Amino acid sequence: MSDKLKLNSNIKLIAFDADDTLWINEYHYHTAEKRFAELMAPWCDAKRANDTLLRVEKDNLPLLGYGSKPFIISLIECGIELSGGTLSNEMITKLIAIGKETIGRPIELYPDTEKVLATLASHYPLVLATKGDLKEQESKVERSGLKRYFSSVEIMSEKHPGSYQSIIQKHGINPENFLMVGNSFKSDIKPVLDIGGYAIYIPSDIIWAHEVIEETEHPNLIRAKELSKILELFEIA
Amino acid sequence: MSDKLKLNSNIKLIAFDADDTLWINEYHYHTAEKRFAELMAPWCDAKRANDTLLRVEKDNLPLLGYGSKPFIISLIECGIELSGGTLSNEMITKLIAIGKETIGRPIELYPDTEKVLATLASHYPLVLATKGDLKEQESKVERSGLKRYFSSVEIMSEKHPGSYQSIIQKHGINPENFLMVGNSFKSDIKPVLDIGGYAIYIPSDIIWAHEVIEETEHPNLIRAKELSKILELFEIA
Repeated sequence: MSDKLKLNSNIKLIAFDADDTLWINEYHYHTAEKRFAELMAPWCDAKRANDTLLRVEKDNLPLLGYGSKPFIISLIECGIELSGGTLSNEMITKLIAIGKETIGRPIELYPDTEKVLATLASHYPLVLATKGDLKEQESKVERSGLKRYFSSVEIMSEKHPGSYQSIIQKHGINPENFLMVGNSFKSDIKPVLDIGGYAIYIPSDIIWAHEVIEETEHPNLIRAKELSKILELFEIA
Repeated sequence: MSDKLKLNSNIKLIAFDADDTLWINEYHYHTAEKRFAELMAPWCDAKRANDTLLRVEKDNLPLLGYGSKPFIISLIECGIELSGGTLSNEMITKLIAIGKETIGRPIELYPDTEKVLATLASHYPLVLATKGDLKEQESKVERSGLKRYFSSVEIMSEKHPGSYQSIIQKHGINPENFLMVGNSFKSDIKPVLDIGGYAIYIPSDIIWAHEVIEETEHPNLIRAKELSKILELFEIA
């Protein structure tokens, strides 16, 4: 069965991830990390700065979760560690500023985001399913101008199989009627395949190291090069 | 009409605020603020430490929102300001620790929380309606052991009239069938009265300065001294 036929005969609800699926996100963190490494240059090379930051972020993840605020706190803790406890107050203020800059930026949609959503929204109910900080994600959705394409917006603290089960139950459908589109194999793809749903995986150029897992094959998994390509997977006018 | 009759004839859904309505919360921030003022003693008195912290928190509120993570960032920014940019890295690490301690503490329920929820849950569907950080609030609800009393848990970034409208619409009722119970006149009471719902206001001993607004009278407003007293307002077995 072709991917196209498979999708058309089954799908009753399509969910989209937001960050790095509909708009640019990780790039801004990447820029912030590069600036952090530059500021740490008196004490260590860029590799050590990045590796240490990743470790500190990982340690903070269970308590602090995702988003810009844990990022700011991790930058400070990591800076203090790398400098051997000699970071000036001016430098700490700079780190806070770098972190705050990742919040509230203008949202840059991918070139075909609007076209894809507008087309699919006239054939399927669409859900925005995003993980992260409630306030930050709400603000991004608002600023994106995309809210009108979605019948609901689901902001979750984690994307576990159970999180997707809730969405499926809420809409009164079965897992085989559900399709998730996203850029993170760990958060958007694997948990959906695990519960019997369909997934379109669009790998992004940059991904946060903590989102990387081994990618497996699955009969319900379709890969796409970019968002604009996914319309070809549906038999719609 | 007595408060009792008013509630019995109208209410089809009861929502409860969580922090400082069902369990102790603000007390822990209060303790953290006192420790912050003690640490700032070399540079200023407690009043100035508290006033400055409040101002910094208020400035951060639009960008960073509620919860422990904005609190940690505000402590650091405020400490740097009060010390004239001379805060040691050891002191900054202490401030981060004070802030982190407000997360993940054991939940201390008020004495009659379980009894009140268990009694009301057998007569009405109950909703938990809380404002704040998604991850922190989810974790508190989980640890509270109270989830089983609620048909749904709503975590909002702000408690605007629109937030309550959404809950009411979701449950297919009218505002006059909705009762909200909470300790913040600003977040739990006023927006509900504004849209035509009922509210039971249980003032708490300590309240965050940013939650304080002028309290007005309203025919749909009932005041209670403590949570245990609200059962008397319902005509139930």
